Amino acid sequence: MIQTPYLLFLGDAPDPLAAKVAQGIRDWRPGNAVAQFRMEGCKADLRLPDMTLTEARAAGAKTLVVGVANRGGVISPAWKKVLVAALEEGFDLASGLHNLLRDEPDLAAVAAACGRHLHDVRVPPVAYPIANGLRRSGRRCLAVGTDCSVGKMYTALAMDREMQARGMKATFRPTGQTGILITGDGVPLDAVVADFMAGAVEWLTPDNDPDHWDLIEGQGSLFHPSYSGVTLALIHGGQPDALILSHEPTRAHMRGLPHFALPKLEALRDLSLAMARMVNPAAQVVGISINTAAMGEDEALAHLESVERRMGLPTVDPFRQGAGRLVDALAAL
Amino acid sequence: MIQTPYLLFLGDAPDPLAAKVAQGIRDWRPGNAVAQFRMEGCKADLRLPDMTLTEARAAGAKTLVVGVANRGGVISPAWKKVLVAALEEGFDLASGLHNLLRDEPDLAAVAAACGRHLHDVRVPPVAYPIANGLRRSGRRCLAVGTDCSVGKMYTALAMDREMQARGMKATFRPTGQTGILITGDGVPLDAVVADFMAGAVEWLTPDNDPDHWDLIEGQGSLFHPSYSGVTLALIHGGQPDALILSHEPTRAHMRGLPHFALPKLEALRDLSLAMARMVNPAAQVVGISINTAAMGEDEALAHLESVERRMGLPTVDPFRQGAGRLVDALAAL
Repeated sequence: MIQTPYLLFLGDAPDPLAAKVAQGIRDWRPGNAVAQFRMEGCKADLRLPDMTLTEARAAGAKTLVVGVANRGGVISPAWKKVLVAALEEGFDLASGLHNLLRDEPDLAAVAAACGRHLHDVRVPPVAYPIANGLRRSGRRCLAVGTDCSVGKMYTALAMDREMQARGMKATFRPTGQTGILITGDGVPLDAVVADFMAGAVEWLTPDNDPDHWDLIEGQGSLFHPSYSGVTLALIHGGQPDALILSHEPTRAHMRGLPHFALPKLEALRDLSLAMARMVNPAAQVVGISINTAAMGEDEALAHLESVERRMGLPTVDPFRQGAGRLVDALAAL
Repeated sequence: MIQTPYLLFLGDAPDPLAAKVAQGIRDWRPGNAVAQFRMEGCKADLRLPDMTLTEARAAGAKTLVVGVANRGGVISPAWKKVLVAALEEGFDLASGLHNLLRDEPDLAAVAAACGRHLHDVRVPPVAYPIANGLRRSGRRCLAVGTDCSVGKMYTALAMDREMQARGMKATFRPTGQTGILITGDGVPLDAVVADFMAGAVEWLTPDNDPDHWDLIEGQGSLFHPSYSGVTLALIHGGQPDALILSHEPTRAHMRGLPHFALPKLEALRDLSLAMARMVNPAAQVVGISINTAAMGEDEALAHLESVERRMGLPTVDPFRQGAGRLVDALAAL
């Protein structure tokens, strides 16, 4: 568990997109974001207060989060200086970078000397159990996609926000690096050893109040041959009561696989439901989340309406319209 | 790649079952089994020559394989003495034990000093790629099960033996510890990190002659919630042309899960085929392999006949009847 709140390190981000992890924290957990730390030449700005390390500590920040992608997979000497100073100032460090903080001898040595923690969220921090398939109390919702990167995390976070606003009991359960940094906790499922994938998801979504919803971050797609096994482990470990179908309608082929077409929503519905019902016979598909970012407003609304008519399920773009109707569908279950 | 042939170390096996890894090597790759090494009190006997380390080296053995399960997860001091002597005698060591050879400081030190290799086949030796989903030349067969441990490895090995006898081009492709020790090569799929599972299977079954068959060792079951993700990665990475359905008809529930019933063969057929056709539209179910070990001969034959009639597919117990009819079905594809 990563100590919150955070100081968000944007480094020398070459453009706003490079800081999208920090942006995610800022957007979804503003209470976790005390301030930003920018170096000379930084082209990203989260419109948070710019603070020095000392100011941010005084304002209550406990962990410096590397909220920016680094260039060429190397932690630059310029970054190092700040990261070392942060450890000495009393911050823990957290990062989702491919190259690990713990593999940098100077950071590891200073952290040990100062009694601080280095959180590399790409590395599973727990020895997860083998899944036991037992039903757990409480309810669970999972977004499944026609492809990778179609908006499953965004959908779960938007539903979580709406449910918190309504006073419903809900917890967003991250299964990827960005989600884990946003909330400070979760399972980096793509880095878990095969035999323990489903068990990790069970561990992430334990017994809870009967009216509590876990909103589990989806990963991959049952139809994406590179990652389908991860998705099936999410379904079988998560035992969802409710499934949301996620789709990006302008995509020409599966992500990274020019020779694979995306499946139809009908195929996604039928296969996901069959898989979910193996472990939870009451599972239902309750709604559809479409990422219409590549469409104009009129085209998007017409598309959403036509999918809704065709599929007979509440269909929204949570970015354009909010997740209210998806939450209505959960509440009605 | 583990150097063959082997000296099979049976240690102080408390009963023949404890030596089942060695038995598998003896049964399926007798050419890899030069001799056995038994300690005082050993209750297993593979009916191979008993040799000292020196005799086995002289007879050509290159690797000492720990072919026995250890008690309590500890490598005993009595074993250690033999393993150290084997390294000094010029053997590599190979083991599928949960506790790793490389984690024993004395074994690691002696191996380094002698320039010998320690093969822990539970640890993936390769950085596998992400699957790319591209079709490969050559043909592939995969056994899929209604449950774990229903005879998928046995089926593939029996088909391999039959195909070698017929002069067909075939390679058994191990995906588990026992299979890897039998052949000296393979992928320990249950220990591969989630994102790389399907890629590891692609790596294991590369381009080959158009008339060559990879016989891929199956794992888990699409219906077993603890391991289903591993099975799906095998199907999507393996792109099988031919599927064999595997089943154990007397089992009361899914292995380790008293609250889960086994699926029907029809459900296994339909789901496996749908999954395989996502990556290989020509995939077909060609036969059924039933493990009738718990039945008498008459009951077994009657059961096989009734399944064959019901499913309309060649149905055999390869242990009782050989795998000839399954190989016929492959050859007819």
